[in-house]
Amino acid sequence: MTHKSGRHFLQIPGPSNTPDRVLRAMAKPTIDHRGPEFAQLTLSILERLKPVFQTSGPVLMFPASGTGSWEASLVNTLSPGDRVLAFETGQFATAWRNVAVKLGIEVDWVEGDWRHGVDPAVVEAKLAEDKHRSLMAVLVVHNETSTGITSRVPQIRMAIDKVGHPALLMVDAISSLGSIDYRHDEWGVDVTICASQKGLMLPPGIGINAVSAKALKISQSSGFAKSYWDWGPVIKMNEKGFFPYTPPTNLLYGMDVALDMLLQEGLPNVFARHHRLAEATRTAVGAWGLELCGVNPAEYSDTLTAVMTPEGHDADELRRIILDRFDMSLGTGLGKVKGKLFRIGHLGDLNDLTLAGTLCGVEMGLGLAGIPHTKGGVDAALEYLASNS
Amino acid sequence: MTHKSGRHFLQIPGPSNTPDRVLRAMAKPTIDHRGPEFAQLTLSILERLKPVFQTSGPVLMFPASGTGSWEASLVNTLSPGDRVLAFETGQFATAWRNVAVKLGIEVDWVEGDWRHGVDPAVVEAKLAEDKHRSLMAVLVVHNETSTGITSRVPQIRMAIDKVGHPALLMVDAISSLGSIDYRHDEWGVDVTICASQKGLMLPPGIGINAVSAKALKISQSSGFAKSYWDWGPVIKMNEKGFFPYTPPTNLLYGMDVALDMLLQEGLPNVFARHHRLAEATRTAVGAWGLELCGVNPAEYSDTLTAVMTPEGHDADELRRIILDRFDMSLGTGLGKVKGKLFRIGHLGDLNDLTLAGTLCGVEMGLGLAGIPHTKGGVDAALEYLASNS
Amino acid sequence: MTHKSGRHFLQIPGPSNTPDRVLRAMAKPTIDHRGPEFAQLTLSILERLKPVFQTSGPVLMFPASGTGSWEASLVNTLSPGDRVLAFETGQFATAWRNVAVKLGIEVDWVEGDWRHGVDPAVVEAKLAEDKHRSLMAVLVVHNETSTGITSRVPQIRMAIDKVGHPALLMVDAISSLGSIDYRHDEWGVDVTICASQKGLMLPPGIGINAVSAKALKISQSSGFAKSYWDWGPVIKMNEKGFFPYTPPTNLLYGMDVALDMLLQEGLPNVFARHHRLAEATRTAVGAWGLELCGVNPAEYSDTLTAVMTPEGHDADELRRIILDRFDMSLGTGLGKVKGKLFRIGHLGDLNDLTLAGTLCGVEMGLGLAGIPHTKGGVDAALEYLASNS
Amino acid sequence: MTHKSGRHFLQIPGPSNTPDRVLRAMAKPTIDHRGPEFAQLTLSILERLKPVFQTSGPVLMFPASGTGSWEASLVNTLSPGDRVLAFETGQFATAWRNVAVKLGIEVDWVEGDWRHGVDPAVVEAKLAEDKHRSLMAVLVVHNETSTGITSRVPQIRMAIDKVGHPALLMVDAISSLGSIDYRHDEWGVDVTICASQKGLMLPPGIGINAVSAKALKISQSSGFAKSYWDWGPVIKMNEKGFFPYTPPTNLLYGMDVALDMLLQEGLPNVFARHHRLAEATRTAVGAWGLELCGVNPAEYSDTLTAVMTPEGHDADELRRIILDRFDMSLGTGLGKVKGKLFRIGHLGDLNDLTLAGTLCGVEMGLGLAGIPHTKGGVDAALEYLASNS
Repeated sequence: MTHKSGRHFLQIPGPSNTPDRVLRAMAKPTIDHRGPEFAQLTLSILERLKPVFQTSGPVLMFPASGTGSWEASLVNTLSPGDRVLAFETGQFATAWRNVAVKLGIEVDWVEGDWRHGVDPAVVEAKLAEDKHRSLMAVLVVHNETSTGITSRVPQIRMAIDKVGHPALLMVDAISSLGSIDYRHDEWGVDVTICASQKGLMLPPGIGINAVSAKALKISQSSGFAKSYWDWGPVIKMNEKGFFPYTPPTNLLYGMDVALDMLLQEGLPNVFARHHRLAEATRTAVGAWGLELCGVNPAEYSDTLTAVMTPEGHDADELRRIILDRFDMSLGTGLGKVKGKLFRIGHLGDLNDLTLAGTLCGVEMGLGLAGIPHTKGGVDAALEYLASNS
Repeated sequence: MTHKSGRHFLQIPGPSNTPDRVLRAMAKPTIDHRGPEFAQLTLSILERLKPVFQTSGPVLMFPASGTGSWEASLVNTLSPGDRVLAFETGQFATAWRNVAVKLGIEVDWVEGDWRHGVDPAVVEAKLAEDKHRSLMAVLVVHNETSTGITSRVPQIRMAIDKVGHPALLMVDAISSLGSIDYRHDEWGVDVTICASQKGLMLPPGIGINAVSAKALKISQSSGFAKSYWDWGPVIKMNEKGFFPYTPPTNLLYGMDVALDMLLQEGLPNVFARHHRLAEATRTAVGAWGLELCGVNPAEYSDTLTAVMTPEGHDADELRRIILDRFDMSLGTGLGKVKGKLFRIGHLGDLNDLTLAGTLCGVEMGLGLAGIPHTKGGVDAALEYLASNS
Repeated sequence: MTHKSGRHFLQIPGPSNTPDRVLRAMAKPTIDHRGPEFAQLTLSILERLKPVFQTSGPVLMFPASGTGSWEASLVNTLSPGDRVLAFETGQFATAWRNVAVKLGIEVDWVEGDWRHGVDPAVVEAKLAEDKHRSLMAVLVVHNETSTGITSRVPQIRMAIDKVGHPALLMVDAISSLGSIDYRHDEWGVDVTICASQKGLMLPPGIGINAVSAKALKISQSSGFAKSYWDWGPVIKMNEKGFFPYTPPTNLLYGMDVALDMLLQEGLPNVFARHHRLAEATRTAVGAWGLELCGVNPAEYSDTLTAVMTPEGHDADELRRIILDRFDMSLGTGLGKVKGKLFRIGHLGDLNDLTLAGTLCGVEMGLGLAGIPHTKGGVDAALEYLASNS
Repeated sequence: MTHKSGRHFLQIPGPSNTPDRVLRAMAKPTIDHRGPEFAQLTLSILERLKPVFQTSGPVLMFPASGTGSWEASLVNTLSPGDRVLAFETGQFATAWRNVAVKLGIEVDWVEGDWRHGVDPAVVEAKLAEDKHRSLMAVLVVHNETSTGITSRVPQIRMAIDKVGHPALLMVDAISSLGSIDYRHDEWGVDVTICASQKGLMLPPGIGINAVSAKALKISQSSGFAKSYWDWGPVIKMNEKGFFPYTPPTNLLYGMDVALDMLLQEGLPNVFARHHRLAEATRTAVGAWGLELCGVNPAEYSDTLTAVMTPEGHDADELRRIILDRFDMSLGTGLGKVKGKLFRIGHLGDLNDLTLAGTLCGVEMGLGLAGIPHTKGGVDAALEYLASNS
């Protein structure tokens, strides 16, 4: 395959750029997954995953994509025919809903315009209506990767508590964990769904569930027939550092290094860095006079920015020009917003100058694609970055 | 972690030794899994997987372990409560059965002594008994990784045909594919289950199903609720080189190289090499006066050799000594045969001298562990290797 | 060592950014440097080095830095006490002179202001003065890495020819080869000095001499005692793909890939790409209102840009701020120009967005360091890049 | 290039097998060799090189092969026309002599039969004869890589001291350092010559000199014109972690890891491991009834074993067969002993089973090549290895 000169700019909202150190770690020879060295590796990883989820409970890994982690969250806690409450915040919320529906779960679906996060007031109202407590779970995508909108989980938790509803709170933190402050325990989340390829800075291949004591207890009476996704055997075998399946050893080598990087930088610093880079990006978008997909500043995502192209301008044509001319991959508009927006990923192993190069690519692309905009987005972003350290 | 000097001998029956070239390929930067470069990669891999399975039908990859591929094979072709015929050839046959049972499938279980493969005559008898054709599938582990016994799939196919039974033939080729001759189409297999970490010479993380037209058709009316494992969306998106989930990009980089290696060496050469190394190993075991787990020479496995330790001698103690003294990992006895046998993996990226070093380690270990044996196993193996090129 | 988040920007004028592919190639296991596989590798590299030097004569590699290649050029063609003509174009011309002086060569040193290349008229005058033809060689640094000034070798050749002087023409192309058009044969260069770490996109460790027939002939009567640098044994052993010393195998693996990259992109494309990125950089510098070190546009370098900081502003303080705040390394002012200029490397494996990020870092740094400048350098560069493809 | 299946056995006496960890370290991106991170790397390496040489004095690295380190040792301490005493212990002693001769040094050459090390009695006699103290240095190859013979440096030191001769003691420890006990300070060595590709477990590319205070002092009045090899600037710039030339950054990354490995294992353990593997090899050779090149057991090398083939049997034909059939590289007979012996390297990153595989390859090769021998070499080696831990 012909490669262009220089380094490709992978600025999609995940998979994020895998750090060189992680890639090199993944190139280590595979070892015996039933041996003592492997057990040490697993135990050390499981221990360090907990602070990243801000939980003291179990965190489980599956050889799977994030889609698999969704399925795991559902089949361990629910039974066929159970009702759950879910919100149309975008493509990934919809896809998770679809998983639930395929599995025979009844989804009480709150439609949305893909420009807002989950409204805590609606959560409260819906749960209050549910006099018979037949809703078994509330499904929330913390950070909608398709729209760049971050739902406010603490407020959602408060809404549930206000009603005193016993439903489980299940949150997809796939594109927020390790990048945006996320507190599994403090926010009373019952199942957090995650995957390796975003803030954890790994290639795809590991799906993750963090599980509350309440969820764990409920899982023991879940009515789904299940095997692969069954939490029980995983938790049991993890105790000694093993797995009930052949684990993806080389991805775990990468996880080992990625966790070191996150914890050495310090989570508060990681979150601050993401916020700063996101603010710079939004500053550029504002200066260009373009519209963000998200309309509520309190819900702006710190890991990606979804930018609307003006009516009549195909966002995918812009993306194609930028890929061809500047060797940069940006995120496409998914589903309903196909062609209407493009997404700039700014998460994971990222710094000021790579973001600056990214914004330069977007600004040049806007010009080449003939998309109406005001110049000066890059200047505004640089101004922001230089002034905020 | 302290590393011993020199290269670890990973002689378990999988994960096999990942070639350096594959490891380096896996260290390439992750790319956009929705972009054109990725689509080319996928299409090229899917095309080259077919000859390795000796099929012209679809081959599907999941981010999963082999355990996941079992589940995929079942939920796509069966319905809850369906009956299947399965054979206790060892730990992995049992584990697959357990997956089926957990999923609510009724398994007609033919017990075994773990020293024989599936008996085609029993297949014939069982299917002949099934007047109502209520058995929906026959599950066969081609190469039992726990015992080193290879069942004779062509004869099993003939048995099914003789009875004219419409049951699907589902075969686990996890530790044979890419090492032992395996013919999905010619043998009339309906679903072949595989994974990346054995003959395909990759780390774990990709589960595979090869699917016949008959299985594909049946999958459309399968009664299992399913999402992650659903063949339909995978086949559909694979057409353009994409996946309905975030695929494990860096493992696919490795797959790309591993397929090149297999096809460049040529499958017949690959099979002959495995047979030769296996014969050398069995020659050594014979010279030591030790017993193989398999009792039928027609069922000896060419990817691993399971060696019984004499009564009163713990095979795991032998393995421990060999690991401590010689930094070599051998396979443990699983389940019923725990402590009673050890397994020598001789599959994947392997040559004469690494096998010779392996056998030297076993011979020294036998002495150090005080296991009664005759010296000369290594000599006999070298004699064999030198005489057969 | 703590690493900052994201990829370091290595924008010094060499070592340039080694492409990931080259780094991975260098991680291949070392092989026998006396075996057949190694011979093939050497022969293939030597064959492909010739077009990069645009020569049909021998190209020799030494395990050495560029400094070593200077020494090799001198001790093979000259004798102690010989006179050579050399020009003070900057730090590296001075350093090469110093090597000559240390070795006992008499250097006719034409002083310079570090802001001009070698003046062909001065070459002509100097050689014309040399009635006794006692000048044995003219030493020219093609591209002064300390000043970003490219001397005009074809005009220098014409000057020599005009006088009809027999002196050898020896040219240091360390920071131009593989980036700026350089024609060893056509320009009548007798010895070209090069090294691996600039346009050849490798880490440092290989020094190179390309040699004309005339130089080769003269080398047979050179009066220097020499062993390591002696061309004779190298040329002789290279014929079969070997070396008279243990060669740096893993760097040669990298060279193998780097040559593929250069030749696949095509040298004219490589040169055009460097020119375009250099023009963008100069456009930015012009917009900032800063002064280039080079005063003659015909001598602007396409691999690096040396930018003067205004009187009273320490260029190294600027570099320190940029390194601390933006994790980018820029080149320091060397020797006479210490603190007076900084150098932006834009050579090797580089593309638009990395250059854009680089210029953003410089623009922010200028502001933070309080260096008087006009904003808009980045804008001007983007304008240039978007308009010229 | 087609690669055979499995891992190549590189059992030449250097370059030795580079550990995977070192290879991966070398794949790190190149950094600015004038920046603070690089300075830290250099200082840390220089500090840890000292204990490996068992010296408290300066250790200098050059981008060069071992041949270059020879040249460096000579031109820093001697003057053209100086006399030195040297011993024909094999190919490398001869090659070093040739370097000296080429440089204009007069070598008092003590001929030898390539089957003995340097005789301390001859050293004593030769120095005693030198009434005018005109011999400026004694050159000794500690471990002759062409013959597998280790000269006894302490006894040579004693011989020099006995005579009270002021000559410098210069020792080539290229294939012993980091593998065989070597004490620069205690043995009163003035210059130790080394290189990266043997016991230091790196690819070739770094030449090394360790220097006594006496040698350093003498170097200030050395009469050789020199530049590249001049110790002075190196020592001066090393103080702050830099070099007077562009250093081979990525090899230094490897050195950083290799030193960690050596020091973590502990030098006494490293030496004991090499001795044990060497003894096992010699045990095998003895059992085969073949002759070692070295005749004095006190001079047997612990890093390689040179084995004579019986009259009329070409050692290179044996090597060719072993390479073709078993993908193992053994060392050829060099110079005078071409075709008469082959060399088994057993140094660097090596363990029991890789050595066992190596000996198996040799034993099979002996049979296939029709070289008269007694079987049982491998058995004897295994017996030794199992009995000595």
